[in-house]
Amino acid sequence: MSPENSVGVVAPRRAQFNEPLRLQSGAELPGFELVFETYGTLNAEHTNAVLVCHALSGSHHVAGHYADDPENVGWWDNLVGPGKPLDTRKFFVVGVNNLGGCYGSTGPLSINPESGKRYGADFPLVTVEDWVAAQARLADHLGVRTWAAVIGGSLGGMQALEWSLQFPERIRHAMVIASAPKLSAQNIAFNEVARQAIISDPDFHGGYYADHGVIPTRGLRLARMVGHITYLSDTQMAEKFGRQLRHGEHKFSYEVDFEIESYLRYQATSLPLSSTPIPI
Amino acid sequence: MSPENSVGVVAPRRAQFNEPLRLQSGAELPGFELVFETYGTLNAEHTNAVLVCHALSGSHHVAGHYADDPENVGWWDNLVGPGKPLDTRKFFVVGVNNLGGCYGSTGPLSINPESGKRYGADFPLVTVEDWVAAQARLADHLGVRTWAAVIGGSLGGMQALEWSLQFPERIRHAMVIASAPKLSAQNIAFNEVARQAIISDPDFHGGYYADHGVIPTRGLRLARMVGHITYLSDTQMAEKFGRQLRHGEHKFSYEVDFEIESYLRYQATSLPLSSTPIPI
Repeated sequence: MSPENSVGVVAPRRAQFNEPLRLQSGAELPGFELVFETYGTLNAEHTNAVLVCHALSGSHHVAGHYADDPENVGWWDNLVGPGKPLDTRKFFVVGVNNLGGCYGSTGPLSINPESGKRYGADFPLVTVEDWVAAQARLADHLGVRTWAAVIGGSLGGMQALEWSLQFPERIRHAMVIASAPKLSAQNIAFNEVARQAIISDPDFHGGYYADHGVIPTRGLRLARMVGHITYLSDTQMAEKFGRQLRHGEHKFSYEVDFEIESYLRYQATSLPLSSTPIPI
Repeated sequence: MSPENSVGVVAPRRAQFNEPLRLQSGAELPGFELVFETYGTLNAEHTNAVLVCHALSGSHHVAGHYADDPENVGWWDNLVGPGKPLDTRKFFVVGVNNLGGCYGSTGPLSINPESGKRYGADFPLVTVEDWVAAQARLADHLGVRTWAAVIGGSLGGMQALEWSLQFPERIRHAMVIASAPKLSAQNIAFNEVARQAIISDPDFHGGYYADHGVIPTRGLRLARMVGHITYLSDTQMAEKFGRQLRHGEHKFSYEVDFEIESYLRYQATSLPLSSTPIPI
């Protein structure tokens, strides 16, 4: 990435919302915080704001890098910057960590004001509708009445779709990438396996793992492997990996035999894991 | 099942083979035992024998029931019996638990004659080729020079295919059902997730779980869930379960929400688990 087309050094910000938020589940959050980043400048008419919604394990760090961590480049840096598709000379681009997302926004690792302890499994289940409702508060906070566009892939695309349903008057474009209005039975099945992998990991501790100073690493790794199977079609996987052996011969052991196994194991371990929110 | 078309009460038998068996991995088993059942009578010419090969988690108990366990009906009882497709008035049908299969045949739960302890993870990895080589010894033992047919579904079908390659002169028909000559990249990927679920379960103990008196139940359940996703196509799953809710409304909890989740959890717990071989 050449310096000319990077947004350069960025820093996350935090917004606090003290109005209670009623969730789809019926539960109510007394208030919440969202961590976000912005790139480019909001114009005088406040008409050039673009919201980028992240997918399942994403964060607010969409573009640029941190002064103290230059290797930590935003997940969509190739699309956001001066001269890039989301041109920051023209657009005011916003990335936000969703409610419950554990990259700093209020979630299971936050302190529950009612108990004075971490929420853990007491954090209410949140939905795409809830994320969008929370994002609307952030829009208000930023002075954005109408987004020029809300953009996202996968679960992020679901949020863009939901914006068009919940706040049709507040978006001019919804860009829905590799997404769907709802999960199929097979999608639900894969998610159930991933969820059960995490929940059944002894280190999950019923959702209170942070209180035990551990992370359900085994379960998260399995969930990542399941996810990475679904990210490629059967055909793509056959083209990319086929039956290629990792070491040119069968190992007849628990070790990696096929290239696809190596790929899945690599993906399983590439997710940064922390039992404390990332400090801001 | 009416009594007229059941093979009735059956009992497994055990055959011991003292000749060493060289495996595909290069390892050698000094000898081994196979547990098997037979239904019908071998004719004088020994030409009416049919071998039924089991799939991944199957056993030798193909038809009938045990005198002391009438509920334990063979897994292909609807196909094997007098007047059934595999008509035991005509055929001598053989079911065998494969090498390493843990339903009584020599496997990881058996005593390693070299150490005097259970094999556990020291049991060599076995392949379809190895199973067929072992089954050929059983054929010799039973006096079957040529099978009228070797039949199997899924991994069982791979064995029927392998018979046609390794011993083409010893089978008259190979019936290969819902099977393939080799796994696709996606198949391998699903198996890798299932395997990692078991191996990463703390109760797996590196393969020596039986010595600890435990079973990697969590991992096995996840593996079963992964398996049951692959047993139905996307379309079949959509038709059978769709997005039907189990309780008519969303639960917003870790509990079952969708019917497909309920199905997978049920399948996950329906495998009989034991850390000791089934006594015969």
